[in-house]
Amino acid sequence: MNDYFSIRWMDGVVRILDQRYLPEDVVYRDYTQGYEVAGAIREMVIRGAPAIGVAAAYGLALVAWHSKATNSTRMIKEIKNAAAELRKSRPTAVNLFTAIQRVERLAAKGEQLKPDRLKKMVVDEAIKIAEEDAEMNSKIAQNGQVFIPDTANLIHHCNTGALATAGIGTALGVIRLAHEKGKKVHVFVDETRPRLQGARLTSWELKQLGIPHTVIVDGASGYIMEHNKIDACLVGCDRIAANGDVANKIGTYNLALVAAAHGVPFYCVGPTTTIDLSIANGTDIPIEERDEDEITHIGDTRITPEGVSVANPAFDVTPAKYITAIITDRSVAAPPYKISLHKLMNG
Amino acid sequence: MNDYFSIRWMDGVVRILDQRYLPEDVVYRDYTQGYEVAGAIREMVIRGAPAIGVAAAYGLALVAWHSKATNSTRMIKEIKNAAAELRKSRPTAVNLFTAIQRVERLAAKGEQLKPDRLKKMVVDEAIKIAEEDAEMNSKIAQNGQVFIPDTANLIHHCNTGALATAGIGTALGVIRLAHEKGKKVHVFVDETRPRLQGARLTSWELKQLGIPHTVIVDGASGYIMEHNKIDACLVGCDRIAANGDVANKIGTYNLALVAAAHGVPFYCVGPTTTIDLSIANGTDIPIEERDEDEITHIGDTRITPEGVSVANPAFDVTPAKYITAIITDRSVAAPPYKISLHKLMNG
Repeated sequence: MNDYFSIRWMDGVVRILDQRYLPEDVVYRDYTQGYEVAGAIREMVIRGAPAIGVAAAYGLALVAWHSKATNSTRMIKEIKNAAAELRKSRPTAVNLFTAIQRVERLAAKGEQLKPDRLKKMVVDEAIKIAEEDAEMNSKIAQNGQVFIPDTANLIHHCNTGALATAGIGTALGVIRLAHEKGKKVHVFVDETRPRLQGARLTSWELKQLGIPHTVIVDGASGYIMEHNKIDACLVGCDRIAANGDVANKIGTYNLALVAAAHGVPFYCVGPTTTIDLSIANGTDIPIEERDEDEITHIGDTRITPEGVSVANPAFDVTPAKYITAIITDRSVAAPPYKISLHKLMNG
Repeated sequence: MNDYFSIRWMDGVVRILDQRYLPEDVVYRDYTQGYEVAGAIREMVIRGAPAIGVAAAYGLALVAWHSKATNSTRMIKEIKNAAAELRKSRPTAVNLFTAIQRVERLAAKGEQLKPDRLKKMVVDEAIKIAEEDAEMNSKIAQNGQVFIPDTANLIHHCNTGALATAGIGTALGVIRLAHEKGKKVHVFVDETRPRLQGARLTSWELKQLGIPHTVIVDGASGYIMEHNKIDACLVGCDRIAANGDVANKIGTYNLALVAAAHGVPFYCVGPTTTIDLSIANGTDIPIEERDEDEITHIGDTRITPEGVSVANPAFDVTPAKYITAIITDRSVAAPPYKISLHKLMNG
């Protein structure tokens, strides 16, 4: 049923499911170079905040694994160069930067080690990052159960499942565990323009898992809430600021406003690696602008006239006041987030 | 610059611009049969509440024009049959039903006339409906000017221009006149999934007219309002209930909620033919569900997995409380709409 995965380490090879071809084709690609992985992140072969964090770590592991450096100083320099490349791949999700920093810092401590020892240390750390992500997913799913009634009608934006992480997913992981526990779950799936992660990826995952769902256009969520009792909206997050503002896929903020108008609880779901206390509020989160092509074309079909101007922000920021709770692996943070997130991160 | 039109009567032939092929190709189709026009409305060769009202009237004119009936009773029966067919073409916009009823009622009065006389009467009435629509467009555009500042940044949903009417348009007509009066207007264009009337049609019209604009995905309006000073949202309407609730293209309600959260004025713009005082409030407006294909495919590209379930309401209802004003040809209605719309319709 669920024999797919977003990314896997295979001793010197990183295998990634090319999500650009889903749901039509299931194509895995093998990478052996750090810069290739940076390209895969940039081109969205792999996406989802936690998954690209893991991908970046594996990218550095590839550099160490295949390094011909005869001393560790040299290998550390190679890792540093690859890290700089990987950092440029996507700007918004914080997990990417956290994972890179973690591997880089560890490597920097290994200057006195033999190259083989350093290589093993870097690879082990990358694997650990992936394992921790999967573990965090499981804990998130458990922590989220309290918000999912036995019969639940949900709205979900973008993709937050196994494809977006190294485990069962974040928001979709909560939904999946609810389904596995025997709850009657139905999911309205925002198609999530422009890249259609909902229509293409989330519906594909839900189909694999046998979870009932209905795809809608992003503009239909208000209509759906008017005509159905919706128990909750669940979305992922790419970066959470210290005040609880959440950067996530474009359209998340609109959904939050629609939910607020209908009194529908709105949950942001993610691992603690998504929380960035160094950023005071959402206005300081860098927002990626992506190619015009994502709006002017779908597949090979041009949908706008030639030469039309387009704005394509890939993310938006949902202010904390519209977020009912933030569900993480450690615990659930409730407003006021300045206090609850600080406590969650610093014990 | 603006030598295109949505629909035109040409003595026994109705010429319609096939909007399914825009913006790539400008294809006009000629119809000589009433049932063909019903098909064109159903298949969305022509769309837009006022335009399909005009199309239906011309459909009946075609029946009269080409009728071989030797007596008027027979011709009236033919018109009645075509009217029944046309009524089934689309359920939500009230203009369609109003136009059909108007022609049908007039024809019913002509039972004593000679067939040629009746034919002329029906054709003249259809032409009059089209001319009145164009005239109403001009008046709407004038009545709307007070809401458009000299430098204006607007958001627009769906298509409400010359393509949606028999004149310069409703919401887009207001924008067009502002531009012609020398106001500095820029329009953010909601692409308007699933049928992309914004991306395909509105951007095409704005390009023809030389009005600066930027296409965005429907989910980006919140982000746009956070990052730009937006002066107003302007949308059309398919049916206005007596209490001021407005049925319009799916996504309109979401945009209204986003506008309300940002304190951005939200204007519904349409001819008085769109007002239906027989309907107390929006919940009584029938909402058309369209084909799943509109969501599962774009052009020939399948975007969802096979067999995925889809909901595709073509319209939603924006409650009156989120509408700043309703701009019509007669005057501008302001809250409370129960009073202002009644006054507007009954003098």
